[in-house]
Amino acid sequence: MKILIVGASGRVGTILTLQLLALGHEITGTSRHNKPLFDHPNYKHLNLDITQQLAQIVAKITDDFDAVYCVAGSGTDEGLLQTDLHGAIKIMTAAESKGIERFIHLSFGFSLEPAKWKEEGLEELTDYGIAKHYADQWLINNTKLNYTLMQPCWLTETPGSGKITVNIQHHRSNSIENVANTLVAVLNNPKTFRKVISMHDGDIPIEEAINSL
Amino acid sequence: MKILIVGASGRVGTILTLQLLALGHEITGTSRHNKPLFDHPNYKHLNLDITQQLAQIVAKITDDFDAVYCVAGSGTDEGLLQTDLHGAIKIMTAAESKGIERFIHLSFGFSLEPAKWKEEGLEELTDYGIAKHYADQWLINNTKLNYTLMQPCWLTETPGSGKITVNIQHHRSNSIENVANTLVAVLNNPKTFRKVISMHDGDIPIEEAINSL
Repeated sequence: MKILIVGASGRVGTILTLQLLALGHEITGTSRHNKPLFDHPNYKHLNLDITQQLAQIVAKITDDFDAVYCVAGSGTDEGLLQTDLHGAIKIMTAAESKGIERFIHLSFGFSLEPAKWKEEGLEELTDYGIAKHYADQWLINNTKLNYTLMQPCWLTETPGSGKITVNIQHHRSNSIENVANTLVAVLNNPKTFRKVISMHDGDIPIEEAINSL
Repeated sequence: MKILIVGASGRVGTILTLQLLALGHEITGTSRHNKPLFDHPNYKHLNLDITQQLAQIVAKITDDFDAVYCVAGSGTDEGLLQTDLHGAIKIMTAAESKGIERFIHLSFGFSLEPAKWKEEGLEELTDYGIAKHYADQWLINNTKLNYTLMQPCWLTETPGSGKITVNIQHHRSNSIENVANTLVAVLNNPKTFRKVISMHDGDIPIEEAINSL
């Protein structure tokens, strides 16, 4: 498949890109820098700053992608409004304008359940939760995209166990490798279409967990 | 009328409250502090922090208001997500849950036209524009409230001329007193129901400008 990964230089984006390349997909990865991230015959780099105007973003994205991953994040509180909220929504709008239907969005645990933000030790991440909340609401309510909305909580730089739990009740940590592998697993799985899927590291093999949905 | 003013301690809220009291309305004003803002027989104070959970906000608001003004603003970049975006939307949700229909929201010039944010000298206010943008989109698309969405640009602490221009093409300054007087003028005017009204100081008397809509 021909796949656009917005935020390919991030911690999740890097592993996700490598995994999808290993599976034989053609990947275009974006970052704010005009420097290719991966040296691979099936990799193309796109210098894309999602804080730019929508029209500029639309002009840079071709219409021949089979799927879009949006795994971009600002990494700082200062960038939440421009990147995690408005930037992500501009990518949704751009994808729709190009006739691309499949859209996989990396969100955040309980982004759609504000009542849990104070209960779950997530209070210091309230701003992050709000930015993700309204981006996710937009994806679900204001687009016709065939979305999968993945909601891990804490990301950790630990090796992936290959096992997760989905539709969780409480937040727990997520190996970045597990998250990337789960994003790969949902790509073509109809059980994940138009679904919101919360997750953390667990004890069910990723494919099995996804197929249980 | 019995009116709730969320953000009564702000620069616009203060003048708005005094004007509505002078017209004989019963006002409940909110601020984050448990200290009455106005000494007037028709004024009641409500200590309300709109960064609290929705359920707590709903519990504090009675259902006997004829109208709600939301003129709360964080005043700082740090508060945009929690106050101007999520806080304002919680007030919309609370109002709907109480069966209150009339909702007057103080927004920001061109909040619904992101393409203008870079062109109009507003670039340093992009974060503010984004917070207002998604609050306004929510009000229009995700509520059934009978809204009026007022969009002044720059606010200045200058005496009100009593004259404005509506449905503007370019941003210009707005006397806070003119903005407050315009918010008063739209309260019961059906020409402002379910309308987005941009404005700046101008040369048409406020009532006449509003009636021209």
